[in-house]
Amino acid sequence: MAHPSGPPPRTVGDLSESELISRITRQLPAAPEWMVVGIGDDAAIVEPARNRLEVFSVDASVEGIHFDRAFTPSSAIGHRALAVNLSDLAAMGAAPRLALLSLAMPARFPLDEFDGMIEGLTVLAARHRTVIAGGNLTRIDGPLVVDVTVVGSVKRRGVLTRGGARPGDEIYVTGSIGAAAAGLQMQRARLASTPTAHPALESCVQRYLYPEPRVRMGTLLGRNRAATACMDLSDGLADAVHQVAAASGFGAVVDADALPIDPDARLWFEHCRLDPVLEAVSGGDDYELLVAVRPRTRGRLAAATRHGGVRLTRIGVFTESQAVVLRRGGSERPLGQGFRHFR
Amino acid sequence: MAHPSGPPPRTVGDLSESELISRITRQLPAAPEWMVVGIGDDAAIVEPARNRLEVFSVDASVEGIHFDRAFTPSSAIGHRALAVNLSDLAAMGAAPRLALLSLAMPARFPLDEFDGMIEGLTVLAARHRTVIAGGNLTRIDGPLVVDVTVVGSVKRRGVLTRGGARPGDEIYVTGSIGAAAAGLQMQRARLASTPTAHPALESCVQRYLYPEPRVRMGTLLGRNRAATACMDLSDGLADAVHQVAAASGFGAVVDADALPIDPDARLWFEHCRLDPVLEAVSGGDDYELLVAVRPRTRGRLAAATRHGGVRLTRIGVFTESQAVVLRRGGSERPLGQGFRHFR
Repeated sequence: MAHPSGPPPRTVGDLSESELISRITRQLPAAPEWMVVGIGDDAAIVEPARNRLEVFSVDASVEGIHFDRAFTPSSAIGHRALAVNLSDLAAMGAAPRLALLSLAMPARFPLDEFDGMIEGLTVLAARHRTVIAGGNLTRIDGPLVVDVTVVGSVKRRGVLTRGGARPGDEIYVTGSIGAAAAGLQMQRARLASTPTAHPALESCVQRYLYPEPRVRMGTLLGRNRAATACMDLSDGLADAVHQVAAASGFGAVVDADALPIDPDARLWFEHCRLDPVLEAVSGGDDYELLVAVRPRTRGRLAAATRHGGVRLTRIGVFTESQAVVLRRGGSERPLGQGFRHFR
Repeated sequence: MAHPSGPPPRTVGDLSESELISRITRQLPAAPEWMVVGIGDDAAIVEPARNRLEVFSVDASVEGIHFDRAFTPSSAIGHRALAVNLSDLAAMGAAPRLALLSLAMPARFPLDEFDGMIEGLTVLAARHRTVIAGGNLTRIDGPLVVDVTVVGSVKRRGVLTRGGARPGDEIYVTGSIGAAAAGLQMQRARLASTPTAHPALESCVQRYLYPEPRVRMGTLLGRNRAATACMDLSDGLADAVHQVAAASGFGAVVDADALPIDPDARLWFEHCRLDPVLEAVSGGDDYELLVAVRPRTRGRLAAATRHGGVRLTRIGVFTESQAVVLRRGGSERPLGQGFRHFR
């Protein structure tokens, strides 16, 4: 981002709030008919979806905590801020409808990065038919904060929660795990000038920067009643298994050999002399879905896989015991998940 | 806030995220029946209100920009963060239903201030029947950021927007203006050790710290079709008149002698040798409503005033001209509102 000559780059501090809002709205498609009052008034007004429940989620992305601007392009900051929220909707079986964007920006935030961030967010929003309905812009004497609220809709019988798993239900996970954690490690290694191993590992970096929320799969699993419980992997697979087991009141066994560890991520972890299984189950940012499935409804997964755009892999089973364990080479150990301080 | 002896105060960094969430949920009343899935899953799920449109607003409160922790008690931080959002709903004629709370907190944020902030927010929420439906907690290496999203509901025919005023419509404002700006000035003067003038001015400080959103008045004005346009005064009366005039495509004349300037605020401004009129029209944080009223429906204001809990004062009129002016002692001047950089 060096500008060796010429005027310094323009920053968001050079513009008024209304000029910044215009730079957002010019990137947005026409609003749908159900949007009664859009951006520009005190609040947005919409018609609710017919015969649907409404689903709300909010998630913040904070510079220095959730992303490092040194290796996260501005478009990825915008993409991820929305993706983590769409992933929450997917985990409830809900289809997204709209998003509200609240930005706290340092005055020196470059205008081209502002535009790139908005583009990353709006491109993902368009792909998932999510209307940017409003938001808030403010200054901050501190790090960039991107707070996104999403609103989705779901039929009552299509709702997925964390609490419906029963002993004997099988545990599935979408896609593959470990790639985002490997990608983040690679980026940090690059920043520290540690030479990287393998050009193929770029795929991991992309998985970290541009996670694809499993929106289609989540709504399909809810609609065809294939899943008894669901949660996304924002804080890693081990955490998700613990959370669903706790919310359902049971335990779980995860089979290490069955885990769909991303092949490039495995190469990276081995290169770093790390245990691929432990890295993949504890690493966050995958935004895959963990799904509990009753064995007799397993057949419904075929249709979900056909149309959901991503594979499903069986990795374990929920158990009567309260313990959550990792089975590996014939032995079992607790599936790690330490006490995490807020600090 | 000195702790001269004993152990240092506990901070949010001493607790886990789930422990912090428990400290919030224990302050919340039982959820209503329309809350299908509440706090603790990936997202909240609610039944929409019958035959209503839905209204969404988000507003951030950033330490150092919107509040100064040196003179803003933690309960006021929580109160204001919700109040500014409820005020936006009121300006649309909407009744609040629920709120989502996204907090970015430094690890050193004292736990008692965290509790106080949540209490300030939940007490106001209870008063306006607003359900805290979910949220997000994260750490920040920087200032405290309190991001609140509110969801309200309104009948289609009760919607108020900024854009409905016509020439001849009279301009009304709820309550009084200037007190919050005076209160903020007083707090800053105290911080700089400038002696304050008058104990009666405490009322201004309270108005700044604990603004009362005009929720009841907003919904009444929408329901009885008394108002043709409405906006809240978050950025001051002059700004609101400009915004409504611009959105409606007309101009306005505001009568300085008619302005309901808070008497204590007037005392304070005069004590500081400031012009009370200019301070009161430019000062923010009042969270009153600016309302446009067609003269022939003026009679409907009586009922709104009777049940709305706050008076309405006529302060001017919208005009064919594009100009927005302040009439004072027979002469007119532009109603000030400078270009505000985002910086």
